[in-house]
Parts: sequence; structure tokens; C-alpha cells
Amino acid sequence: VSRDGAAAAGPSAPGLGEFELIRRYFVRDGGSGSAGVALGIGDDCALLAPTGGDTLAVSTDMLVEGRHFFPDVDPEALGHKALAVNLSDLAAMGAAPVGFTLALAIPAAEPRWLRGFADGLFALADRHGCPLVGGDTTRGPLNLCITVFGRVPPGAALRRDRARAGDDLWVSGAIGAAAWAVAVRRDAGCWTDADPAERRARVRLERPEPRLALGVALRAEAHAAIDLSDGLAGDLGHLLERSSDACGEGLGATIEAAALPIDDALRALTQARRLEYALHGGDDYELLFTAPAGTRAAIDAIGRACGLVLSRIGRIDARAGTRLAHPDGRLETVHARSFDHFR
Amino acid sequence: VSRDGAAAAGPSAPGLGEFELIRRYFVRDGGSGSAGVALGIGDDCALLAPTGGDTLAVSTDMLVEGRHFFPDVDPEALGHKALAVNLSDLAAMGAAPVGFTLALAIPAAEPRWLRGFADGLFALADRHGCPLVGGDTTRGPLNLCITVFGRVPPGAALRRDRARAGDDLWVSGAIGAAAWAVAVRRDAGCWTDADPAERRARVRLERPEPRLALGVALRAEAHAAIDLSDGLAGDLGHLLERSSDACGEGLGATIEAAALPIDDALRALTQARRLEYALHGGDDYELLFTAPAGTRAAIDAIGRACGLVLSRIGRIDARAGTRLAHPDGRLETVHARSFDHFR
Repeated sequence: VSRDGAAAAGPSAPGLGEFELIRRYFVRDGGSGSAGVALGIGDDCALLAPTGGDTLAVSTDMLVEGRHFFPDVDPEALGHKALAVNLSDLAAMGAAPVGFTLALAIPAAEPRWLRGFADGLFALADRHGCPLVGGDTTRGPLNLCITVFGRVPPGAALRRDRARAGDDLWVSGAIGAAAWAVAVRRDAGCWTDADPAERRARVRLERPEPRLALGVALRAEAHAAIDLSDGLAGDLGHLLERSSDACGEGLGATIEAAALPIDDALRALTQARRLEYALHGGDDYELLFTAPAGTRAAIDAIGRACGLVLSRIGRIDARAGTRLAHPDGRLETVHARSFDHFR
Repeated sequence: VSRDGAAAAGPSAPGLGEFELIRRYFVRDGGSGSAGVALGIGDDCALLAPTGGDTLAVSTDMLVEGRHFFPDVDPEALGHKALAVNLSDLAAMGAAPVGFTLALAIPAAEPRWLRGFADGLFALADRHGCPLVGGDTTRGPLNLCITVFGRVPPGAALRRDRARAGDDLWVSGAIGAAAWAVAVRRDAGCWTDADPAERRARVRLERPEPRLALGVALRAEAHAAIDLSDGLAGDLGHLLERSSDACGEGLGATIEAAALPIDDALRALTQARRLEYALHGGDDYELLFTAPAGTRAAIDAIGRACGLVLSRIGRIDARAGTRLAHPDGRLETVHARSFDHFR
């Protein structure tokens, strides 16, 4: 089927074959000209060769319709987000992007949907110099699986298990808006876009920005890092649990409620609901990290260099558990309530 | 939920959470102790560090219920096959396994299914020293996406685009049975297992063996290689197309019908149908490779060392197109009819 022939077949393009689909929407340079990519799309495997003895960081995320995104999501936003959540994992390790693979199950080969999806995907990929190096395409219920590759010098990766008692606890950007957007959309059944706060929150939900430059810069200063996908309390719990294993004793944290960078989109909500979304909301894709107190000036400078607000929201304690310190001095125990796909 | 609590909840285990599911069925050593794996399961990324300056080979495959496997497939066979088809891509590049990631969407956390799937998956992974290093688990229509990593010395990978006119054309093992098994199953609506030929063919469909040792050994002798997933004619077409690009002129091939290693399971079929399955069947996961005539003795020795029949089935021609040479001297043009998910 020629390019023109398939296009003439209309929006559902029954004549658009698998190889033509891949060629038309997903093969560009194939990644072979990119740093660290010895061979891109077109063979049984891609070949990656990180330079200078770098270690390769690998992460994979699967997005399912109705679970990770609304069925009517703008395909361009979906293309952006599918890659963004994977790049966010690289950011959390302090790794610089090398490339990614995409496995895609779609119910039908719809040119308009594929064009939008590819546009959103490659706009973000290009901004971060992260070429598509391989993949798989099949018919099936909509499912996107991206595996992303990054490079990091040996021993330099930001790991979850390196937090120490006494570390400052930091978070990038603003949090809570994405989860509020999901709640608003669920309650209303559709996007109204009438309210500026809702529009702002929707952008946070659909267009998360992976904090890649921040992650690389933090390698020199931070002890431990994780990206916020499950909600601050849940992800902090993961970090504490892993770090406790590494130290052989329980670690905990105290969060200053007043220091939490709650997104402006939540301004009209009660303080209790604002805290709820900030602590348990999820889908923020900001970085949560710990660093010794002596690095505060350096971390402030990194924030300025990256154009990001970095907020010191508390500290790592030698005592297990997570506590929320309210401005009136009250200490509240925080339990992780992160989203569980099987509960 | 404690291990016993969840187990007591019965086969659909509504209390089995996502993290417990991952811990129980998929986290073992996490891969961190394995060669080439600096950090396995449990952080935002896995860290891979192939030794000795090796290049990293990467491939990804997505399997969808009803399309790549029957809904009633034995979960252990499915675990085996999901990894096997990915390892087969490493074999086709001459890469040795380093590890893999698994992204899994399942409708429900069923302990019996998960146990079977994990058993099949890890039995094959262990046999090839290929640890699970990361993944993702979510609820959704059954979908398995595996990304596999292998190592190969720089410049040594077996590529599709290196075939040359005059090369011998070889194929490993026996072909055609898997596709016949699919046809038998579709016609009957279920497996009967009454016929030994059908049982044999079903094993070929459900338990393909990735030819990893063969791939590594062939690096020293072969020019080009591809694994057979779409059918011999289609995959040969991919190889010829890529090699032609590399040479700047059309390449073709002649296949000797009498030399095709058609699986014994197809013995009772007419010669026309046997050829049909051998050329267009797919799902064989054998290696198709080209090598100069001077390597015949070396390749025979590799076959013996790997315990595999290697059949010399024809040659690469300077003239485009694929021709089937019948024993009576008749030359028949072969057109690729490989499976297309969007046709």
C-alpha cells in the first residue's frame, strides 16, 4: 500500500499495514546517528554503546487506557506523557537519556490518532535528545509500553537506598494538581476548561515535565532520590524502606506542612484537602530527594540553574515512620495511601 | 496483606496488592548479583554495566491475548514463550543474555495463573542466566511486554544488512510446525492432543527454544542473520531488503525446496501444504543466516556443538526476488505473505 493509497482509505485506513504504519509514524532517523546508539530501528535488536564506560540505566512503564489515562485523552498529550513518565525514572537516577523503545497495542491504525501520538512523543524525545531505537506494534486493546535507556557514570546514580538520618528532604516544583485534575474530571465526567485552576491542573496531569537536568545536577549533591508517581507519602515510604534496608535500621521522616509546595491550582480548596492531594495525590513526576544540610546553598544554585523551585520540606529521621509537622506544632502520623492497581 | 492472608483469600485473591504481587511472584534476587547487572529490581531504574566494553543489544516484544496466544493457554507455556521470543531476537544478533524487564497488564491477580506464568518465565530465564531486572505491573486486558538486554563485542553483532551475493543460506532446526498447530487449533476449536503429530507441533508453538548458543557461535562465521517469526519467505525478505540497502543494489535468493527442513509433524500433509507452512507459517523462532561458502565445514561443526541440525537451504543471488527451486528444475517465484497485524 502506497502512502497516498492508505491516506485515501480514510480515517480508519483499513489498508494501512503494520510495516507502513511503523515507517510512516515512527521511523525517522531510527536513532542510529545519536550518541550512544550504535544501531537503531530495523534489525532484530538495537545496539547501545554508552561512551566512556557509563552504566546504562533502564526503566519500563506500561500505560493502559482507562487506568492511566482517560479514553478520550488527546493523543498528542498521551504521546508526551507516555515518554515523560519513563524519562522521569531516568531523572530520578540522575541519568541522561540515550534512547527508548516503544511497544504499542492499538485497536485500529487510525492516521489522525497515530499522527497526534507520534507528534507528542517525538516533540518530547527531541527536546531531550532521546531517539526511538526499536519497538513493536500490534493490534489489541490500547496499551503503551515504553522502555527508556539512560547513561550515568559508574557509581554515580542517584539511588533510593542512600538516604541518611539528618538529611534534608527536598521536592522540586509544585505538587498535588495532577491528582486534583483527575478528581475534577471524574466528578464532572468531562473537561469543562471553564476554570483557570482546572486548566492549569489538567496541564500538570497531561504534560508532566521530566526533571532530567535536575537529576543530572543532583548527582553531585544529593544522597537519594525518587520520582513522585504514587504520591509524596507513598514514594517517601519507598525511599525510607529501601534506605532502611541499606542501613540495617529503621529510617523515618518529618515533613513541614507549611513548606510543602502545593500547586496554586489548589488555592481554592480547604487546607485539609490541599494537604491530602499534596501528600497522597500522585502523578506529580517531580523529584523527591535527600541531601546533607551542608549542600543547601549548592542545591539552591542548582534550582536556579534549572529554572525550578526546589523546596526543603523536612528531614530524614533516625526514627521510623513519617510525621507531618503542622504550623501549630501538632505532629500527625502520615500513612502511605498510594494507588494500588490490584486493591 | 500477609502472604498467608492473601493465599487464604482464594484463587482471585482480592486482597493481593500490587507490591505483594511483585514481591511474591517476580522478585527473586532481583538480578543484582548477575554479570552485567549493577542494580536490579527495586529502584527507579535498573543499572546495566556490560563488561569489557561490550555493546548492549536491546529488543522488545509485546504479546496480546487472542492475537499472539490463545486465551486458554497454559500460563507456564505463556511465561516461557513471552521470554523465548525476545531471547530469540538476541540470538539473531549473536548477543548473550544480560537481563530483561517485564511489563504486565492482567485483568486480576490470580495466584494460580501468576505462579504458572512466573514458573515458565524463570525456568527459561535461569537456563540462560538472564535475570529479571525491572518491570511494571498493572490491571488491564492481558498484555505482556518484555524488553531483553544482551551483550555483544563492539562490531561483532550479526546484522540483517550484511548478506552478500553468493552467500549460502542456512536455517536452524525444523520449520512449519508452529503455524500448522495454530491452524489445527483454530479448526478444531480446542486442543485434542490425540494425534502425536499435533502434540509435537503444539510443543513447537508453545515452547520455542531461542537459539542463543548458535547465535553467539555464528558471529565468527555468518554474514547476516534474522530469527524466523513472520515466516521464512517474509523474514528472508526483510533480510534481503536491508542488505540491498547496504549494498546499494537489489539482492535476492534461491531456496532449494528439497533442502527445507520441514518439521516431521507435517509428514501427513501434501507437499504443497508442507511447503506452504515452511515458507509462510511463522512462529518458528529458528535462525535464518547467510555465510560464505568457505565456512561450510565450520558451520557444520557449530551445528554439532550446539546439538542442532543446520540446513543449507539455498543461496543469496545478485538478482532481486526470492525463487523456490523444485526438484524437477522448476523455478517458482515466492512472495512474502507474512502476518500483518493491521491487514
